[in-house]
Amino acid sequence: MRTHPGSVVALSGGVGGAKLALGLHRILDTGKLTVICNTGDDFRHLGLHICPDIDTILYTLSGLADPDRGWGRHGETWNFMEALKDLGGETWFRIGDRDLAIHTERTQRLEHGESLSAVTDHFRQRLGISTRIVPMSDDPVRTQLLSEAGWLDFQDYFVRQRCNPAVREIAFAGAEKSGPAPAAISALNDPQLQAVVICPSNPLISIEPILAVPGIREALKGCSAPLIGVSPIIGGRAVRGPADKLMRELGFDSSATAVAQRYSDLIDAWVVDKVDADTLVPSNIKKVITSTMMVSMEDRERLARDVLDATQQMSSKQPSTTKTADVSA
Amino acid sequence: MRTHPGSVVALSGGVGGAKLALGLHRILDTGKLTVICNTGDDFRHLGLHICPDIDTILYTLSGLADPDRGWGRHGETWNFMEALKDLGGETWFRIGDRDLAIHTERTQRLEHGESLSAVTDHFRQRLGISTRIVPMSDDPVRTQLLSEAGWLDFQDYFVRQRCNPAVREIAFAGAEKSGPAPAAISALNDPQLQAVVICPSNPLISIEPILAVPGIREALKGCSAPLIGVSPIIGGRAVRGPADKLMRELGFDSSATAVAQRYSDLIDAWVVDKVDADTLVPSNIKKVITSTMMVSMEDRERLARDVLDATQQMSSKQPSTTKTADVSA
Repeated sequence: MRTHPGSVVALSGGVGGAKLALGLHRILDTGKLTVICNTGDDFRHLGLHICPDIDTILYTLSGLADPDRGWGRHGETWNFMEALKDLGGETWFRIGDRDLAIHTERTQRLEHGESLSAVTDHFRQRLGISTRIVPMSDDPVRTQLLSEAGWLDFQDYFVRQRCNPAVREIAFAGAEKSGPAPAAISALNDPQLQAVVICPSNPLISIEPILAVPGIREALKGCSAPLIGVSPIIGGRAVRGPADKLMRELGFDSSATAVAQRYSDLIDAWVVDKVDADTLVPSNIKKVITSTMMVSMEDRERLARDVLDATQQMSSKQPSTTKTADVSA
Repeated sequence: MRTHPGSVVALSGGVGGAKLALGLHRILDTGKLTVICNTGDDFRHLGLHICPDIDTILYTLSGLADPDRGWGRHGETWNFMEALKDLGGETWFRIGDRDLAIHTERTQRLEHGESLSAVTDHFRQRLGISTRIVPMSDDPVRTQLLSEAGWLDFQDYFVRQRCNPAVREIAFAGAEKSGPAPAAISALNDPQLQAVVICPSNPLISIEPILAVPGIREALKGCSAPLIGVSPIIGGRAVRGPADKLMRELGFDSSATAVAQRYSDLIDAWVVDKVDADTLVPSNIKKVITSTMMVSMEDRERLARDVLDATQQMSSKQPSTTKTADVSA
């Protein structure tokens, strides 16, 4: 008998979140995990519908991801990009030759009327992934950032301008008119649901777009299983990406505490790294202290196990005690 | 002083025609050649606007063509195609990783409102080609073939079905509503025009789509320079492609004579291979006998020189004598 027989939902953005999603995928029984992906980073480029976070999850769970680069596929070639440059095309957003296939096929299928959910599920099956991968919405929601130079589209800010502009405000264009992907809601309503995990993704631009889709926050609040978040900030810094910089620019601490506060109406438990053992969390949230840095595959699996173990110690949705539990001991 | 100081226009389809176009390109002064390309093979596939004959001319004249395969680029890789197959995409039409760039960039530029002429000229300049490369039309003209199974789109017939279906009729959908590319007409109206060369392309599916564009046939008939065609049939067989099969299926001989007859209202001279020295041509058309098989670069240049030499011996547009001239002697 397995330790974690129920189903688990993970909310994730790209790289950082995908590491924990992979850990959960590997330790859970086949088909027990559903990953709800941020699609606020999606954009149209070179005529292609590109979903960076969905692809990172697909590539990570199928073993196709490049472990060093952090995005795209391993063993990738760049001949398309090189030829495009010679022809005077746009090359600020790099797309590998193999990676191009998923954008091309997705664009075709969407133009033939398939939903993003259906296309994503098709890819998951083709790549042999048992975990369900679900976009937060089949409708377009686009993260935009207000800088001194005005509103920037996400990829313009993130890739072209390398997160350099100082950000004053973040918006999720289209969110108010969007609806959650049906599979996201049904996963959260699963009577066998054991835990919902907010992966260590950027709260501002990876998790909050998901929460901005009408219906998702309500489904999270209403679901029977405990919600547990993992801090993407370790020792005041983001492991990867601009989370810490963005937090400060928007007037927050770049701390595990500040991120927990953003989720305080949702989470029942908050996982921080040992270096952040003194993190203050609201009294109704259980603090879990462990090692959250994921370098090796063992790290990913161990953290996934620690997260699920912590939720098993919690009675569903009952206010937890204020005690801190060091599950890494 | 050069032997051929005037300008030259070549009408061409893909591979076979491109060989002679390359020969002409190499022996003529910079900027003296204009190649008018068939676009009847163009199609939309994987969301891309693909122009096989224009690309073959671009790649051939820039030295990027694969000499063995006969299409696409040399040193090509196929990682996109392989990944697309894994994702369940359509793979019957093979597109190399480098080749993908031209389709992607063309599609983008067309969707932003550029004409096919402008896009093609942009690529020509980016690839450092001095010869002008002009589509027959900026409007869509699509070659379709009637088989026992009904009408087939060109690439379906040519690539997917490998020219296997017997063809009863050929149509150029959209031709009647199309207009010639402005640069095609201005090249044919150039007062310095020395010769118009119909390259050894398939008459039925490479040259006749060009002639089907309203205004091109008239411009050819009205231009001051002699028109000379080179037979794509040698010893009753097409050097490459289905020209001979198609000719027979449509009730014609697969012979240099039969091709000349299709051009008889246009050409002043007809170039045949030595093995077809006894080819009968109408009395108002000058027969030129030489070696038309192009294997080496020297072959391409020599045939180009033979073709232009033959037109220099002709007084423009005056009915030529019935004598045959063996310029290869």
